[in-house]
Amino acid sequence: MTESPETSAADPGPHQLQGQVVFEDAEYLDAVVDLLGAIAYGELSAFERLVDDAGLAPSLRDKVEMCAMASLEFGHVSRLHERLVQLGADPFDAMAPFEAAIDLFHAHTAPADWYEGLIKAYVGDGLAADFYREIAAYLDADTRDLIVASLADTGQASFAVRHIRQAIEADPRLAGRLALWGRRLMGEALTQAQRVAAERDALTALLAGGIDRPGLDLAAIGRMFTRITERHADRMAELGLSA
Amino acid sequence: MTESPETSAADPGPHQLQGQVVFEDAEYLDAVVDLLGAIAYGELSAFERLVDDAGLAPSLRDKVEMCAMASLEFGHVSRLHERLVQLGADPFDAMAPFEAAIDLFHAHTAPADWYEGLIKAYVGDGLAADFYREIAAYLDADTRDLIVASLADTGQASFAVRHIRQAIEADPRLAGRLALWGRRLMGEALTQAQRVAAERDALTALLAGGIDRPGLDLAAIGRMFTRITERHADRMAELGLSA
Repeated sequence: MTESPETSAADPGPHQLQGQVVFEDAEYLDAVVDLLGAIAYGELSAFERLVDDAGLAPSLRDKVEMCAMASLEFGHVSRLHERLVQLGADPFDAMAPFEAAIDLFHAHTAPADWYEGLIKAYVGDGLAADFYREIAAYLDADTRDLIVASLADTGQASFAVRHIRQAIEADPRLAGRLALWGRRLMGEALTQAQRVAAERDALTALLAGGIDRPGLDLAAIGRMFTRITERHADRMAELGLSA
Repeated sequence: MTESPETSAADPGPHQLQGQVVFEDAEYLDAVVDLLGAIAYGELSAFERLVDDAGLAPSLRDKVEMCAMASLEFGHVSRLHERLVQLGADPFDAMAPFEAAIDLFHAHTAPADWYEGLIKAYVGDGLAADFYREIAAYLDADTRDLIVASLADTGQASFAVRHIRQAIEADPRLAGRLALWGRRLMGEALTQAQRVAAERDALTALLAGGIDRPGLDLAAIGRMFTRITERHADRMAELGLSA
């Protein structure tokens, strides 16, 4: 069992002003714009990768199912964009700072076959979702709800679990290679997350807290990564793989 | 001005039987299943190609817009599949016979840049839509309505026209290359359509007509291709290109 984020969010309650959503704290607003931009670009590139990886599908039926999950994922992008506009931000400017890191993640984790693509769709998406949900716990309720909805599983989990379990049953040697692949996804995700953390001051300031917002000390950040790692292990176990 | 299909459809009205849609005429049913399968596979691969070609976009904004059009296009696939199931057909079996021709069309028309991709999205989709709509005129009203809805423009037209006109204004030499590209799309589409016509007896029998269904003689088929060619020229002119 994994714990949920350890401190409940202070709510730096935004207020509405002539259709715009306004936060008093400019630094907080920067962090929210960063976060929504990162998630939107992540969803867009996950969509592109899923459609691309669907080309590896062994049957037309599997390909269509993967494209359907991708399309649902894309639907989240426009909702994130709407919110960014409400916050007075340009959605494309907000996404731009995260292009390099997310593109590198995908360049370094191009699946060699259909099974690696499935695991990436499930495990990679799950990792990103866990990470963003941890951060969302420090945000106002509206932003948190939007983020949680944007990260909803669009069917990858059960689809991947079903196919991977069947494949390993048919060829048990596959399990070793796919377990290594899961570790590589985790390693590459951490590398890129650290890169983003080093570059985006507003996001790290958010985690450090503010005058009237609780933050995370080093021990709490350690526990957060422990939770993310445990959930990753749970997903690998669900696939029948060691983490 | 282009004429509309010259004979209005006889309606071999399907009737409902315990949730299934039943046609009396087995040959007619085969032709409808073929047609819906071809359109569904065409939409699926147009979706994949659009997402792929969106990678050529000069900006994130253009990429998102192209992916949004692709996603809408994908939405048509599930409605065609539902209808195929109602007709007692397996949607994936229905799509399979058209994979080779449609994949070849895309393999032979891989765009070299963003502008070729845009023209393909508009002109290629338009050609396919005109062709299927011509055939749909010989079908029962329910099938015809579904086909017409499935072929609705998802925004490609105005998006492509706007971008291509701007690009030619900035660099008039582009017009020559893009005009040739439009001809290549037309030629390749005709080649693959002939291939399908030669292989799928049910579809050609449909066009030839049946005991209580009007068909097309050679002269009428010629006029149909004239209409399709004229509409292609209209689209090229709309882009500011010669056909």
